[in-house]
Amino acid sequence: MPTSADIDEREEGLELKPKFDASGLLTCVATDAATGEVLMVAHMNDEALRKTIASGEAWYFSRARNALWRKGETSGHTQHVVEMRMDCDQDAVWIRVEQKDAACHTGRRSCFYRRVEAGEGEARLTFVDADRLVDPAKVYGKHP
Amino acid sequence: MPTSADIDEREEGLELKPKFDASGLLTCVATDAATGEVLMVAHMNDEALRKTIASGEAWYFSRARNALWRKGETSGHTQHVVEMRMDCDQDAVWIRVEQKDAACHTGRRSCFYRRVEAGEGEARLTFVDADRLVDPAKVYGKHP
Repeated sequence: MPTSADIDEREEGLELKPKFDASGLLTCVATDAATGEVLMVAHMNDEALRKTIASGEAWYFSRARNALWRKGETSGHTQHVVEMRMDCDQDAVWIRVEQKDAACHTGRRSCFYRRVEAGEGEARLTFVDADRLVDPAKVYGKHP
Repeated sequence: MPTSADIDEREEGLELKPKFDASGLLTCVATDAATGEVLMVAHMNDEALRKTIASGEAWYFSRARNALWRKGETSGHTQHVVEMRMDCDQDAVWIRVEQKDAACHTGRRSCFYRRVEAGEGEARLTFVDADRLVDPAKVYGKHP
């Protein structure tokens, strides 16, 4: 069990001590450095975190593909990191990025293109930024 | 395995079909509705998601305490939800909130109060918003 000294150091210290989860991952939120819009939520393992810090370009770890990837390596839709912040308990990072074209694999600027609307019965989704900047079939081939 | 029809429906449909992880959780990013600042990253289980949608106040599920909690129930630092968005594959939600006082349990406005700085050797953290709005010992007692 962590002691309160461990917690204090992690929360109040200046040492980067990422707290990876059982799968070895941190949560990463990427926002548009210009507009503040949340573009995507993804994960970083230790190597992705190190590569992102060293290169200034976003690297992630794909749980679905069980692989490290540089954002935009297939699509060209890279993320240049303007600033990286670490949260209090060091299990989540926030990167402010300059996003080239679309952050979302569906071809949209942000992955968060639908709003949740509470209704009379079940909650529903409505599109708010439905426009695709690019055609995912062209960028990723048939199986994005 | 999900079929491509399942994926299409989840990504392009208007039905709320949250994709909870193996622990029954979604990732939730809360940003300040006024400034766009990322305040915190936390988790919601099905009940937290439903309660948030129904009440317009943020509810989360604490992995550390294994318990549902209404944000601010102890501290009074509630989050009124202005807008909720769902991401492409419905495993992350983004809420834009009106945050009462501090989002972070350390008493700071945001959990992301330290910047990651790449240096010559190891990356280090620097404080960017170190000021505490409230004294956590007063809000939470001795053991925040």
